[in-house]
Amino acid sequence: MAPGNLFILAAPSGAGKSSLIKALLDKHQDGSMQVSVSHTTRKPRPGEQDGVHYHFVDHNEFKELIGEDAFFEWAEVFGNYYGTSKQAIARTLEQGIDVFLDIDWQGARQIKQQMPDTATIFIAPPSRQELLRRLRGRGQDSEEVIAQRMDKARSEISHYQEFDFVVVNDDFDDALADIESIVTSQRLRQPRQAIRHAGLFGDLLKEE
Amino acid sequence: MAPGNLFILAAPSGAGKSSLIKALLDKHQDGSMQVSVSHTTRKPRPGEQDGVHYHFVDHNEFKELIGEDAFFEWAEVFGNYYGTSKQAIARTLEQGIDVFLDIDWQGARQIKQQMPDTATIFIAPPSRQELLRRLRGRGQDSEEVIAQRMDKARSEISHYQEFDFVVVNDDFDDALADIESIVTSQRLRQPRQAIRHAGLFGDLLKEE
Repeated sequence: MAPGNLFILAAPSGAGKSSLIKALLDKHQDGSMQVSVSHTTRKPRPGEQDGVHYHFVDHNEFKELIGEDAFFEWAEVFGNYYGTSKQAIARTLEQGIDVFLDIDWQGARQIKQQMPDTATIFIAPPSRQELLRRLRGRGQDSEEVIAQRMDKARSEISHYQEFDFVVVNDDFDDALADIESIVTSQRLRQPRQAIRHAGLFGDLLKEE
Repeated sequence: MAPGNLFILAAPSGAGKSSLIKALLDKHQDGSMQVSVSHTTRKPRPGEQDGVHYHFVDHNEFKELIGEDAFFEWAEVFGNYYGTSKQAIARTLEQGIDVFLDIDWQGARQIKQQMPDTATIFIAPPSRQELLRRLRGRGQDSEEVIAQRMDKARSEISHYQEFDFVVVNDDFDDALADIESIVTSQRLRQPRQAIRHAGLFGDLLKEE
């Protein structure tokens, strides 16, 4: 068992997941946690850096990686491919660094099957009204577009019972503290602590 | 599933378990947590109150309770019986109150078998030297007595891998915060949150 912990965060859009992950990583810049960087065939947008926001690869490279079974999960969205590299995650976990994956319920399910030890966290909005308000955004979209977003959100939320933990993002700071507690408690699990404190337990159990 | 969480804390003597439990309960006087009160046949010591420190019963009552399968676990120590009542714990958990049990690895194992949902926490001392120092106490005991205490501590520690979580009590406040994180994360587990936020999820998943 690698000494690092793998966390999956999933949420409907409008739940505040990206801001929570950003705040978590900003707060813990001690090298103990990283966000997993996905592979994608989509073109970089202005400001996006290779290896930071995504590993940008072309279609042929991506298909080769699929052939090599290099991904925990991959998906095609609007003609672009997105995938989560097994090797990159395994290497980080081996170093004792916790890895955060920002994916949807389908990706979460696929990874949980392959790594049952993963802690999966579902972030929920505090109310339907607030979710609608956030999906409406700046009020420049048609009711039809908003209804589509709501359908998509509802579809994601309908899988919340597949997750290990549920955090309701009512107050941002409370939700952040909740996620931090889950991270801390995962680090305190016995197999992790047995690795971390192997010397201590060897010493405590030593006969005279 | 009852809405409350059951926690077991075990430790060798000298690990600081009692002080940690006391500090935890003192800090959270919001009615969200209680320490389980055991039954015992031993006589009350000065200052001990029935129903607070123990439920004091006589030998016949205790044996009747055993006959009624009223205990999760019971043990005889130096001629006195000690037991953990199923009903008292179930009733508290049903009210959504978390229950803390202060028992040894044998009791922990027995309860975990009957209630696999229990979170079991092992508190370890920070070093062999510090454990010895604490077991020496005020330095009024013979080396033989101290060696016996160390044997007993080592025997308890040898079961640490049976626990879900391990907290090393090096710094008291850190250890307390660790236990609080475990408590918070147990409350955030999906089945608990599905009960607590049933209204929210019903609302979020409602079709137009």
